[in-house]
Amino acid sequence: MAVAARAHPALRWDGRVLAILDQTLLPAREHWVELEGAADTTAAIRRLAVRGAPLIGIAAAYGLAMEVARRPGPGPLAEAAALLAGARPTAVNLGRAVERVRAAALAAEPAGMAAAARAEAERIHAEEDAASAAIAAHGADWLAGRRRLVTHCNAGALATAGYGTALGVIRGAAERGKRVAVFADETRPFLQGARLTAWELVRDGIETTVITESMAAPLMRDGRIDIVVVGADRIAANGDTANKVGTYTVALVAREHRVPFYVAAPVSTIDLDTPDGGRIPIEERDGREVTHVKNIRIAPEGAKVYNPAFDVTPHALIAGIITERGIARAPYSESLAAIVGRSLASST
Amino acid sequence: MAVAARAHPALRWDGRVLAILDQTLLPAREHWVELEGAADTTAAIRRLAVRGAPLIGIAAAYGLAMEVARRPGPGPLAEAAALLAGARPTAVNLGRAVERVRAAALAAEPAGMAAAARAEAERIHAEEDAASAAIAAHGADWLAGRRRLVTHCNAGALATAGYGTALGVIRGAAERGKRVAVFADETRPFLQGARLTAWELVRDGIETTVITESMAAPLMRDGRIDIVVVGADRIAANGDTANKVGTYTVALVAREHRVPFYVAAPVSTIDLDTPDGGRIPIEERDGREVTHVKNIRIAPEGAKVYNPAFDVTPHALIAGIITERGIARAPYSESLAAIVGRSLASST
Repeated sequence: MAVAARAHPALRWDGRVLAILDQTLLPAREHWVELEGAADTTAAIRRLAVRGAPLIGIAAAYGLAMEVARRPGPGPLAEAAALLAGARPTAVNLGRAVERVRAAALAAEPAGMAAAARAEAERIHAEEDAASAAIAAHGADWLAGRRRLVTHCNAGALATAGYGTALGVIRGAAERGKRVAVFADETRPFLQGARLTAWELVRDGIETTVITESMAAPLMRDGRIDIVVVGADRIAANGDTANKVGTYTVALVAREHRVPFYVAAPVSTIDLDTPDGGRIPIEERDGREVTHVKNIRIAPEGAKVYNPAFDVTPHALIAGIITERGIARAPYSESLAAIVGRSLASST
Repeated sequence: MAVAARAHPALRWDGRVLAILDQTLLPAREHWVELEGAADTTAAIRRLAVRGAPLIGIAAAYGLAMEVARRPGPGPLAEAAALLAGARPTAVNLGRAVERVRAAALAAEPAGMAAAARAEAERIHAEEDAASAAIAAHGADWLAGRRRLVTHCNAGALATAGYGTALGVIRGAAERGKRVAVFADETRPFLQGARLTAWELVRDGIETTVITESMAAPLMRDGRIDIVVVGADRIAANGDTANKVGTYTVALVAREHRVPFYVAAPVSTIDLDTPDGGRIPIEERDGREVTHVKNIRIAPEGAKVYNPAFDVTPHALIAGIITERGIARAPYSESLAAIVGRSLASST
């Protein structure tokens, strides 16, 4: 089953080959890249050609399914699964999606491994698509009259299936006729906000203003922001949330100005096995992402660079976590467990 | 009198022509531009070829002096003074320096206008040089054992005369043998931190790590930062401080982590006529600074941009204001008035 395409999807699956929109080239170029196995899919995830916690889960699932079709058998399966799961450390969706496809393949008869892996990858894709749709369907309710939003990084169609999570909320509200105004912070160093979120929202005709990250604080101080909605890469059992570096700063700034700060994420991003944010592995990336924009050097040689890709927002700063199963509120150790349990119960 | 050059100065005055290091081209190119009057000096200030509150005061003073030498008389003087003073609105040093040169020229005999204007501009330059030197001389004392610093934007030799203000503190401490480690946040959109602060400090052999602005918060949360020191464009009578956009965010983040936040600035930046930060005019600049890096477009067409060049940090977030006359502490309405009074008393 090929999952139905939505507005500007970030990947296309034809049952055999995975095509991804190369997100490193947006907004200048819309260039699609075909992936055919575990190695090229891992490389695409590492270089951020495909990114966003739910989306890299989907891509890795297809990557493993394609590899199983090419090289059936438990040895190559284990090798490819380890490669894909290790592509990036922070998003829980990645390892979880790979594990699901691996387990499905192993549970099948040898002759059926490839079909089982493919079916499981398509199931993950469909689930993420449904999660985005469910989040978007209630977008107007989640916003509850608040129409001027700040979002950080990209939690849209380029980060998930379907409409996205944070951008799913926004799109859902816009579709119900709400006049939302989005302030997309550019999100250094990779500029997902300026390059990707603004690109998505402008295409949808949603009012979008690009700001640098540090402009959110004066905007809030001037009373020009009603709510912050961001995505997540991993949500610990206590509600601490790892997301793109900068999220923690936006959350602190929002609290100072009494602007509610929400996380929107599929249940697949919740990791009850990680008790708190201190246990979430934080990826550090190449300093060149900071010192260069494309091939232009913006920092002198001789300077060191610190480039963590994520930070952790403590649960105390989060007003609510919006999921396809409803909204979790403090105390998160209870509400998140209940939401994950509901999801498991309904799927078994 | 030509003011003695210090390590990599940002401008050179030969008594007739003002040469400025074009800061838009750093760190890639060290290109000097010669200015000869009010119009080209105004243009250089507007396009940020010369920047930093004290430095644009000095440049504007020389710009007016050069114009008076070319076109003596009260009419051209008034016209040139208005042009230069209006180049940028936020830094108080600019209008103040222009007014001093204008008044000096008007007070002179017609035949002596040019000489009087030049002498006043050189006096302003020398005063700023001395202020930086005085701030640097006590750098090690100001830091009081704290060696891991965050600074925002550039308050160095490229923003002032001499060693700079925030970077003056740092250089002064380094010269006394303190092993300081500076985290220079890149400072979007114009990248003064990555392009200018890191360039200055690396040349001085001071350990420098470039980060994006949002990485200060996780660094502080990990206990890796001891103090924040920044410059200022205008300090109101109550201590509210306008500085490069992003300063307010760093100050909020510092308070959350109990990291002391200091402003280092010459007395020329204190504006007792402005009662509080709400009255400081905030410049909004061309959106292209946000949507482009050099000629690379990083945000899609169709997105709006909000690009305030400064924000205001409320006095309550400021642990102290370091000046050449000592450190002001809360209540600032008293301590700043005392420092400005001392300065006036000692100069009359």
